[in-house]
Amino acid sequence: MAVRALWFRNGALSILDQRELPGRTVVRRLRRVEQVADAIRTLAVRGAPTIGVAAAYGMVLAQRNGRFTPRRAATLLGRTRPTAVDLFVGIEAVRAAWVAGEDPLAAADAYRARIVEECHRIGEAGAPRLMRSHRVLTHCNAGALATVEWGTALAPIRVARDRGAHLFVWVDETRPLLQGSRLTAWELARERIPHAVIADNAAGHFFARGEVDAVIVGADRIARNGDFANKIGTYEKAVLAREHGVPFYVAAPWSTFDARRRSGASIPVEERAEDEVLEFSGRRTAPRGSPGRNPAFDVTPARFVTAFVTPGGVVPPGRLATALRARVGA
Amino acid sequence: MAVRALWFRNGALSILDQRELPGRTVVRRLRRVEQVADAIRTLAVRGAPTIGVAAAYGMVLAQRNGRFTPRRAATLLGRTRPTAVDLFVGIEAVRAAWVAGEDPLAAADAYRARIVEECHRIGEAGAPRLMRSHRVLTHCNAGALATVEWGTALAPIRVARDRGAHLFVWVDETRPLLQGSRLTAWELARERIPHAVIADNAAGHFFARGEVDAVIVGADRIARNGDFANKIGTYEKAVLAREHGVPFYVAAPWSTFDARRRSGASIPVEERAEDEVLEFSGRRTAPRGSPGRNPAFDVTPARFVTAFVTPGGVVPPGRLATALRARVGA
Repeated sequence: MAVRALWFRNGALSILDQRELPGRTVVRRLRRVEQVADAIRTLAVRGAPTIGVAAAYGMVLAQRNGRFTPRRAATLLGRTRPTAVDLFVGIEAVRAAWVAGEDPLAAADAYRARIVEECHRIGEAGAPRLMRSHRVLTHCNAGALATVEWGTALAPIRVARDRGAHLFVWVDETRPLLQGSRLTAWELARERIPHAVIADNAAGHFFARGEVDAVIVGADRIARNGDFANKIGTYEKAVLAREHGVPFYVAAPWSTFDARRRSGASIPVEERAEDEVLEFSGRRTAPRGSPGRNPAFDVTPARFVTAFVTPGGVVPPGRLATALRARVGA
Repeated sequence: MAVRALWFRNGALSILDQRELPGRTVVRRLRRVEQVADAIRTLAVRGAPTIGVAAAYGMVLAQRNGRFTPRRAATLLGRTRPTAVDLFVGIEAVRAAWVAGEDPLAAADAYRARIVEECHRIGEAGAPRLMRSHRVLTHCNAGALATVEWGTALAPIRVARDRGAHLFVWVDETRPLLQGSRLTAWELARERIPHAVIADNAAGHFFARGEVDAVIVGADRIARNGDFANKIGTYEKAVLAREHGVPFYVAAPWSTFDARRRSGASIPVEERAEDEVLEFSGRRTAPRGSPGRNPAFDVTPARFVTAFVTPGGVVPPGRLATALRARVGA
């Protein structure tokens, strides 16, 4: 029953192709680092922690190939997507081992294990905040698919449910690529966690009617001051949560925290092809001749965040810099 | 070049089938009131002012049929959609003439002419507010298609452009039925008004970057205190506009003002079939077994509105009740 986004076996990285879900379960075996880069670029694998792990295994494949220097492999993988910092953390974890003459696969396996273990701790840390929140809204997919196993935003939901909380999840469909409708709903349906898919537009209506008790999302990059990038539309939900006095949580492993970045102002925001907005599954929905704009992420200022749910516990934005310093110092 | 949503000729109501746009231009000739009711229910004709006019002509067809009483025809048409008050105003305009033994077609023609003329005045009244707003955001379609000709929210944009304003329009795609992407972009592209289609999720990003100077939307029902119902997602944009100090205008003919309704709390909000969210053009996008919720409208409190753009001028919410009393008294 448990979902796994990817696994490495017999010299290949197998990924669950997330573009095909929920209609089909397609596993792709990637044997070359270029294939891993393509899978990341095309969102066959997605979710900040998952792409970090995928890139770590991509480094393993590059090293085994023999034609790559560590730097060239890191550049190839690092150019796939700019926003999620986990990508670079995953690359670096294996690059460092490779350069030091250590076993790259052991480094990638350790990185993967660390992410999964941190997601478990996120679930434990966040669950108490949701025990009395009957209706929780989430945006995009921050479940097992996004984190290899278990999830960030979905981890506390899973733990709270297991502890007896009667949770209902509002699933923002998350245009343009419907990661909420396609992936989050798929994970929740498998586990029989009650939920409903809504147009992103409808969240405000349910906030206004008092039908949202908490919001929990993942992140792609969190600056030292607590500003964070996440899937486009997250900012709109954060503004609504504050307007309605609803707590807003951001769940992430340590790999998503970019302690060297002072604020969100300098986080690079990927802008993807306009066709993702103007077409649906290859069929044009907008008029020919109408252009589109397609930022894939937005940056939410720290003042909208109630707390970060980290592997080290629940941390309000005002204590984040200290928590990150303590971690680096430890 | 000018768009017309519908016209009555030779005993039939012809409608531009808005479900087919922008891919195909399909005109349907409706000869029976039941067909008009179906066209309204299925959104072949849509937009509060347009469905009011369509219903007015539906009453004409019912009277000519001979099998309908005025009350039965009004009930049939009135049950199609609950939120837009224009529907009931259009029905009543012809019902009153019918009951009084006057010519129903003359009454429907007069109602139609009044709506179109009011939209012209909305354009004149609203344009000065947009002359210095380079980037205007709109949600759903409040153009000619929604108002028979000319538009409500799009009318001031058209007039401002004709007066030399260099306008660019952010078009919210407006999930689930994409009236922004399919219809508003189509109208703007025909007139070569610069625009870009965005996922509804992306508006917040552009607000945060200071790239939205004004918001203008239509409405489906406006209560005496200025609370108003409009397409789902409007409320989210209103909250964002206030957060960013961006003016938020609501443009509507008098038929959309429900002077007898004290506030938005009692405005009926239509909830449509979940498949509109869970499927795309007949193809399931959400997992089987995942339910959806699909409110078609939301209600935005008056405090988020900078001003209403009416045929009688620009009216801030605080002066709306007085303006409506003066109109009724006139």
